[in-house]
Amino acid sequence: MFRSEGEFVGWLQQRLARPSRNVPVGIGDDAAVVRASASHDLILTADFSIESVHFSRRIHPARSVGHRALARSLSDIAAMGGKPRFALVSLALSNRLSRGWVEEFYAGLASLADRYGVAVIGGDTSVAAGAAADVTVLGEVCRGGALLRSGARPGDLIFVSGRLGLAELGFQLLKSRPLAGSQRLNRKNRAEAIRSHLYPEPQCALGQFLSRNRLASAAMDLSDGLALDLSRLARASAVGARIVEEQIPGPEMVPAEVARRLALSGGEDYQLLFTVPPAKAKRLPRAFRGVALQPIGLMTTTNKLTLVGLDGGEIPLEPAGYDHFKRK
Amino acid sequence: MFRSEGEFVGWLQQRLARPSRNVPVGIGDDAAVVRASASHDLILTADFSIESVHFSRRIHPARSVGHRALARSLSDIAAMGGKPRFALVSLALSNRLSRGWVEEFYAGLASLADRYGVAVIGGDTSVAAGAAADVTVLGEVCRGGALLRSGARPGDLIFVSGRLGLAELGFQLLKSRPLAGSQRLNRKNRAEAIRSHLYPEPQCALGQFLSRNRLASAAMDLSDGLALDLSRLARASAVGARIVEEQIPGPEMVPAEVARRLALSGGEDYQLLFTVPPAKAKRLPRAFRGVALQPIGLMTTTNKLTLVGLDGGEIPLEPAGYDHFKRK
Repeated sequence: MFRSEGEFVGWLQQRLARPSRNVPVGIGDDAAVVRASASHDLILTADFSIESVHFSRRIHPARSVGHRALARSLSDIAAMGGKPRFALVSLALSNRLSRGWVEEFYAGLASLADRYGVAVIGGDTSVAAGAAADVTVLGEVCRGGALLRSGARPGDLIFVSGRLGLAELGFQLLKSRPLAGSQRLNRKNRAEAIRSHLYPEPQCALGQFLSRNRLASAAMDLSDGLALDLSRLARASAVGARIVEEQIPGPEMVPAEVARRLALSGGEDYQLLFTVPPAKAKRLPRAFRGVALQPIGLMTTTNKLTLVGLDGGEIPLEPAGYDHFKRK
Repeated sequence: MFRSEGEFVGWLQQRLARPSRNVPVGIGDDAAVVRASASHDLILTADFSIESVHFSRRIHPARSVGHRALARSLSDIAAMGGKPRFALVSLALSNRLSRGWVEEFYAGLASLADRYGVAVIGGDTSVAAGAAADVTVLGEVCRGGALLRSGARPGDLIFVSGRLGLAELGFQLLKSRPLAGSQRLNRKNRAEAIRSHLYPEPQCALGQFLSRNRLASAAMDLSDGLALDLSRLARASAVGARIVEEQIPGPEMVPAEVARRLALSGGEDYQLLFTVPPAKAKRLPRAFRGVALQPIGLMTTTNKLTLVGLDGGEIPLEPAGYDHFKRK
């Protein structure tokens, strides 16, 4: 079997369609892009939500499972700068699920879809041993306007939106595995972290803003942790990156050491990671619709990732994070 | 839980998006149709292929699993009269699968995709307890040209393409459960039946021909057996149907009684069922690219389905066939 998701995706890229005139972006970015008309491109993405892999019925209410199943795909469309339009929801149900569970799943999914103007137009249904959903979203973007992982150049500023690691903190709290320091969280902070995990908000408006104003040279969504996702963006762009620990916006409610670990390796924040050429940086606002846009470092000419610590020393940034193919 | 797939889909139709200006066809037909431009509509469909539900590794070679996973979705596009363009393949792998199995899965899928001019542009990967694929296909059709289940009118002729029940016969042979009479099959007939099951051919060219020439008033693909699928087309069109047993093209290699049962309730033929207004019937060829187009009956004003037997007597046609939600 393939040793990692990266190896599998690399094999698929070789095996299946390469980018072509009709398919400017194929396998390997957040989503695929295809030519639709003289004015628009279509963006397509599909994301699994599988019981015991992406969610646990012990931890995740059905409403959250439905919300997150769609949020994953919306976040991929956001990362490409697209406007999501239509969704197909394929749902396999196990006999252990109640009709109430299914209704809550769709309530969570439909509520998010409504807020983002997405019509759920189809999909498939089946039975299976465990519950599994696969959500496909079709979005659109101005022709040539899709934000890719591969466009970053040395000297570009690296930005992240929002606060990283909050979702992972919430997940740890839900699993009743308190992190060092998190015992001291008050009720409001606990609720904020848990909400970040159960009901993440895809950054579609920000992605469209970056694309429309041609501000970002590259972008992707943060689903598997900053360290791993930044390594993917750097590799796709064939450049390196240097980020500054002090600048990384981790959760403020936990000690700095815990916050750093959460921000670097915690998954499922669904914030955006993007790069901005220096000449355009001053056109970028500090926040967009209440979400902070934080510069955290620079792309470099090397093929290395480095982290500048609080003491000013540089250490290699290990691309560690979530990989479905590796044992947990 | 929902008692049948039909009840679940009915609930989804109520719960989720109704047809609108941008979504002429939503949940409930073979595929969804959305407005894309002044000249074209997009057709979207997603289909699961789940181990122990849609395939068994004991019976189906990996190459067949990949072929069938894509064929299901291509057949939905064919039923709408569309031209398939792009596919997303989401594949969850169990640890029991070898890399060789995955390579053969994609070989079967890619070979079919290449023949139909479909580019595989993305999808998702994951691990799971059992192997599961969900294949989404995006196709296109002239604006307003999609063939729906709901357009049949009383008096329209009912047609089917190809030979029905062959795939089910092949499936029975693969399961080593010989039907009465099938012991007498020679090697060539056995191979033909088994091939029909393992490597079904979606009728994309026929669907496009019917759409382009505006010959069909309604169409769908035959995936769950003629009796059940005809009942769905009749209900969607709010009409009834009378079909003639002698006209139904079942497998010739088995006794008539067995052939009738296979043709009426055998699934996964992926042939087309369509209706043609009488005034247009003479424009329909007897065969299209080597596939026979056989008239089998008429749509009626009642809401009943009847079968005219070999003795000329009429009996109610039970809408029996494959339903994932019902126990086998």
